Amino acid sequence: MKLICLDLEGVLVPEIWIAVAEVLGVPELALTTRDVPDYDHLMRGRLAVLDDRGITLPQIQAIIAKLAPIDGALTFLRRLRERYQVVILSDTFEQFARPIMRTLEWPTLFCNTLIVAPDGRITDYRLRLEDGKRKSVEALRQAGMRVAAVGDSYNDLSMIDTADTGVLFRPPERICRERPDLDVAYGYDELDSILSRWAEAP
Amino acid sequence: MKLICLDLEGVLVPEIWIAVAEVLGVPELALTTRDVPDYDHLMRGRLAVLDDRGITLPQIQAIIAKLAPIDGALTFLRRLRERYQVVILSDTFEQFARPIMRTLEWPTLFCNTLIVAPDGRITDYRLRLEDGKRKSVEALRQAGMRVAAVGDSYNDLSMIDTADTGVLFRPPERICRERPDLDVAYGYDELDSILSRWAEAP
Repeated sequence: MKLICLDLEGVLVPEIWIAVAEVLGVPELALTTRDVPDYDHLMRGRLAVLDDRGITLPQIQAIIAKLAPIDGALTFLRRLRERYQVVILSDTFEQFARPIMRTLEWPTLFCNTLIVAPDGRITDYRLRLEDGKRKSVEALRQAGMRVAAVGDSYNDLSMIDTADTGVLFRPPERICRERPDLDVAYGYDELDSILSRWAEAP
Repeated sequence: MKLICLDLEGVLVPEIWIAVAEVLGVPELALTTRDVPDYDHLMRGRLAVLDDRGITLPQIQAIIAKLAPIDGALTFLRRLRERYQVVILSDTFEQFARPIMRTLEWPTLFCNTLIVAPDGRITDYRLRLEDGKRKSVEALRQAGMRVAAVGDSYNDLSMIDTADTGVLFRPPERICRERPDLDVAYGYDELDSILSRWAEAP
């Protein structure tokens, strides 16, 4: 049985924190692990900014609900789910992802969780696992699935390397240079062809 | 993150082989592991019957496509997927399940696979794993999910016992007597309440 693991941001939807930063006009929220390599440090910074400005989860969810999928993503995903099993593996938080999952017609999602106070303030976050993408692919293979993984950036390489096959989707040029062994797709039709070829191989 | 594993037949849709046997008027196809305890023996018998009568996969899929979900199942499943992750864990075959998954709006499915000749004859079958339901729950827990499992019969007990919590849905009376420790639901609202209470507990 074939299962495709898809990264969410950059593969199906735009980067969530960047969209939130733009709409709120708070550029600090657009920092990423490229700017602040320590993830926990980055998240503590983000939560402090939200707290300082009194920005609550419902406000952020309202912004995210307006975030359209990347052109062609929904059609691609619908066609994929008719033929194979699909799990979205993301480093985002389930409360952020929910409005997006609605738009994407409720695919299964493995991600992380925010801790939210009754008044809507985000007080903390909880990683499901350290190195969650890689461990999720490992677990899905242990569940007897043949797994393909699709991602766009450095944090997807461990899941791609753990899967039976992996594809880079619209990656930065630097990753392509560093990983000439990996298939690369720049559009959804191309990505679908690569995945179908793998899945239908004997 | 909370994930609900649902058995398919008896929980969301009627028993597939029984429906196929009735529509085709072939009572031998309605035999189950209650009648033939050895699963491989049972499946070899089913495949021999299909072969004898020249019944192909497309004919069976056409019957299954008309199999309506149990009353209330789709509404229950939709509401569940808006709040939690859901994986269908079934002993059926992906080629049989596909028309049902379409009706159920493409939830993620872990099951087995038929080997099909180009002319549509079913020549063999492949189990994804021995004891696949239990191992799938184990794997999903290793992927960092808190797992509830819902099933209706003996072959669901190992996944129910491996999950963080388990619920029997409309089980035979005998299982209830043997397993008084397990929660039992007879309707979807009741099942939803039990699952929500578990998922929302601190």
